Amino acid sequence: MRQSILFGKTQKQAPRGEVSTNAQLLIRGGFIDKVAAGIYSYLPLGLRVLNNIQQIIREEMIAIGAQEVLLPALHPKEPWEATGRWSDPGSKVMYQFDGHGGPFGLGWTHEELITPLVQKYVRSYRDLPVALFQIQDKFRNESRAKSGLLRGREFSMKDLYSFHRNMEDLDAYYARAIAAYKNIFNRCGLDALVVEASGGAFSKYSHEFQVPTDSGEDIIFSCASCDMHQNKEVVADIACPSCGKPRKELKGIEVGNIFKLGTRFTQAVNFTYTNEQGEAQPVLMGCYGIGPSRVLGAVAEVQHTAKGLRWPDTLAPFAVHILGAGKDTKKIEMKMLELYALLTQAGVAVLMDDRPGLSYGEHMADADLIGLPHRIIVGEKHLHENKVEYTSLAEAKTTPMPFDDVVGMLRK
Amino acid sequence: MRQSILFGKTQKQAPRGEVSTNAQLLIRGGFIDKVAAGIYSYLPLGLRVLNNIQQIIREEMIAIGAQEVLLPALHPKEPWEATGRWSDPGSKVMYQFDGHGGPFGLGWTHEELITPLVQKYVRSYRDLPVALFQIQDKFRNESRAKSGLLRGREFSMKDLYSFHRNMEDLDAYYARAIAAYKNIFNRCGLDALVVEASGGAFSKYSHEFQVPTDSGEDIIFSCASCDMHQNKEVVADIACPSCGKPRKELKGIEVGNIFKLGTRFTQAVNFTYTNEQGEAQPVLMGCYGIGPSRVLGAVAEVQHTAKGLRWPDTLAPFAVHILGAGKDTKKIEMKMLELYALLTQAGVAVLMDDRPGLSYGEHMADADLIGLPHRIIVGEKHLHENKVEYTSLAEAKTTPMPFDDVVGMLRK
Repeated sequence: MRQSILFGKTQKQAPRGEVSTNAQLLIRGGFIDKVAAGIYSYLPLGLRVLNNIQQIIREEMIAIGAQEVLLPALHPKEPWEATGRWSDPGSKVMYQFDGHGGPFGLGWTHEELITPLVQKYVRSYRDLPVALFQIQDKFRNESRAKSGLLRGREFSMKDLYSFHRNMEDLDAYYARAIAAYKNIFNRCGLDALVVEASGGAFSKYSHEFQVPTDSGEDIIFSCASCDMHQNKEVVADIACPSCGKPRKELKGIEVGNIFKLGTRFTQAVNFTYTNEQGEAQPVLMGCYGIGPSRVLGAVAEVQHTAKGLRWPDTLAPFAVHILGAGKDTKKIEMKMLELYALLTQAGVAVLMDDRPGLSYGEHMADADLIGLPHRIIVGEKHLHENKVEYTSLAEAKTTPMPFDDVVGMLRK
Repeated sequence: MRQSILFGKTQKQAPRGEVSTNAQLLIRGGFIDKVAAGIYSYLPLGLRVLNNIQQIIREEMIAIGAQEVLLPALHPKEPWEATGRWSDPGSKVMYQFDGHGGPFGLGWTHEELITPLVQKYVRSYRDLPVALFQIQDKFRNESRAKSGLLRGREFSMKDLYSFHRNMEDLDAYYARAIAAYKNIFNRCGLDALVVEASGGAFSKYSHEFQVPTDSGEDIIFSCASCDMHQNKEVVADIACPSCGKPRKELKGIEVGNIFKLGTRFTQAVNFTYTNEQGEAQPVLMGCYGIGPSRVLGAVAEVQHTAKGLRWPDTLAPFAVHILGAGKDTKKIEMKMLELYALLTQAGVAVLMDDRPGLSYGEHMADADLIGLPHRIIVGEKHLHENKVEYTSLAEAKTTPMPFDDVVGMLRK
C-alpha cells in the first residue's frame, strides 16, 4: 500500500477527553477514530490488526474442534426471560428497546441464543460434545467508558460455547481451551497469566487471562514460584495458598475469561440428552470469551515506546515500512519502488511512504507512531554501494545492509 | 469436513410460519436457524456461503480502489440530528434507545458517520477522491419481516461511500461501481439487471440491481431490445422511452442499490475542500450498497430444484460431496477416506457423508437439500473397476468415471 493513498493520517495530538493510552496511540497513529465514548471506528490500519487478531483466534478455535457460527446481535426478549436475565439487575448492561415484533435487546453475551440452538440438534449422547464459536460485535450499556478499546460500549467478541455429556468431558475440553488461549495470547505477543477469578452459580472459580500492566482495571495476587495467580476479588489474603509466602500485587487487563457453566443455562430450557441406557441426562456447558478489540487495546498498552506503537509480526497491519531519505529524490524513489515491487510480489505486506512534501523528521515521526516491525530506509548515504538501512523495531537496532540481503531476509 | 460432526442437521419440514422459499430451503438444509421474524443465525454451512459472498464483494471493492474500514453499529444521536434524519418520519426504521452517554440508534445506513470521518482527513483537492467500504450487520425496524433473508431486521450489508471534487469524478467512479457490481453478481451466479429507480434529494434516478423472479418485491418494466429497465415506481408508462414498444413486466429482488448523493450529506456538516485556486468547494458523494445476506437469500430463491438448493462453485460451502452406496461398507469407507484425503490435501473443500445408520435414500435426500456442486458416490456397482459415480449438479448428469480422473478433474 502506498501511504499517500492510505486512508487515515497520523495526528500530533490525541483528541481532548481521550484519557486512555491505547486509544490515544491508536488514534494518533491513524488506526481508529473515536465516534463517542466507548465507540470507535476502525480505519484501514486498525481493521488489518483487528482481522489479524481474529484470524489467530479463529485458527486456534478450529484447532480444538470448534465450528464457527454467527448469531444475531438483535435478541428477542423471550429466551432472556427463560433464564431470568431479562430484568435481572446484574444484566442492566443490556440495551433494551421496543420495535415491531419486539421488545428486543442487544447481545452482550449469547448463552440465551446458543443453548436453544444446540438443543434443536442434540438428542443423544452420540451428538455430544458440541463446540461452537462466533466472532461478532457485542454491546454493553457501560456507565463509564474511558478505557479506549479496553471497555467499549460496542466491542468485538469471540465467544465459544461447549456442550458435554458429563463433567469429565467438560473438564477435558476446558483444559484444551486453556491451552488454546495460551497459544492465542502468545501469538498476539501478550504475556497473559491464567488467574483464578470469581465463579458463577455453578463453580466456585472461573479463570481469567490477565496481562499485567499498570493500566489494567484488575489487581492480581501473583506467586511466581508456584505459578499461582488469583484475582484480588476472590481472596483477601496476600499469602500464597500453596507456599504461604507473600505474593506480588500486579494491575491486570483481563483479555479472556472462561467459565464452567454446568447446567445453569441448559436447565432453564430443559435441555437434556439421552444416554446409552436411554435415560434423559442434563447437558453440561462451558463458555469461553476473548475480546479481539480488547486484545488490540491491550497490545497497544503494553507494546509501545515513547514515540509510538510497536506491533509484533503476527499482528502488524503491514510487515515492512519503506521510507526514503536524502536529496536525490528520483534515484531514491526508483529504489523504493523496486523494493516495494519485489517484496509485494513475494507476498509481503508493505507500506511505502511516498507522501510528497514532508521532511525526513516528519516521515520518521509518523513511522514511529505507526510502529511496523521492519523498517527500510532508502537513503543517499548508502545507495552508491547498493545498501539500505534496515531497522528491526523489536531490537531497536539499525544496520546498513546490501539491498539483496534485505529483500532475501524479508521474503522469509 | 466429516458430515457426522458438522453442526446442523437437515430437516424434512421448514418451521411453521416461515413462508419464504429462501428461508425454508436454507433452514431445511441446515444453513441457517430462525431466531425470530427477520432474525436468523448462520450455522457453519450458511456462514461459509455468507463468507464467500462477502469475499467476492471485498475483492471487487478493492479492485476499484476502495479501502475497507469498520464503523460501529451503535450511533450517537448528534450526527443524525445534523442531517435531520433522527426524527425524520422516513427514518422510523431506526431502532432508538437510551443509555449511558446516549441516546443511541442502531445503524441502518452510515452516511451520518462516514461523512464526518472522511471530513477529518480531507482538506485539499489532493486528498480526493476517497472511497471507503465496510461489511457489517445493519438493523431495521421492519414492520413485516416475512421474506427470510430478503428483508431482515438484522442483515449483513456492504456499504461503499465515495467522495469527489466534482461531478465528472463522481460520474466516472459511479460507472466503475456499476461495472464492479456486475462482476459481483456474475460471480455469485445471479443475472442482475441494472434498473433505473427513484432517486433522492440530489438526483432524479438511482440505480438498482434487480434479480428477476416471482418472489421479489419489485416490479420492473424491462425492454430487452434496448437493454433499458425501470422500476415501476418511477414510471407509469409500460412503453419503452427509447423504442416506444411495450415492455415486459418482471417481479424482481433488489440485491444492490447505488446513489449519487451529491452534497446532501456533506453540506449538512459543512464538508468542503480547497481547490487549486485556494477556494473552498463542496465535496460530492456517492453511496453503493449490497446486502450479502440478501444475495444469499436471492441465490437460494433462484438457484434451487424441487429437491433442494443448488450452489454455484463460487459460493458453495464445500465444493465436493462424497457419499457411499452399497453393502460392502468397509471397502467403500476406505475408498471414501482415500478420496477425501486426496482432495482435501489439494485444497479442495470437501464434505464427506460418514454418518452411520442411514439408508441410501436418506443420504441422497440430504445431499440434494444441501446442493453442493460436485457429488461423488462411491458404490459397489463400479468399485471393482476402480470407478466412482460423478454428478455435476449444474448439469444434472451422472457418469461413472475412473477414480484417478475424478480426483484430477476436481483438483482443478
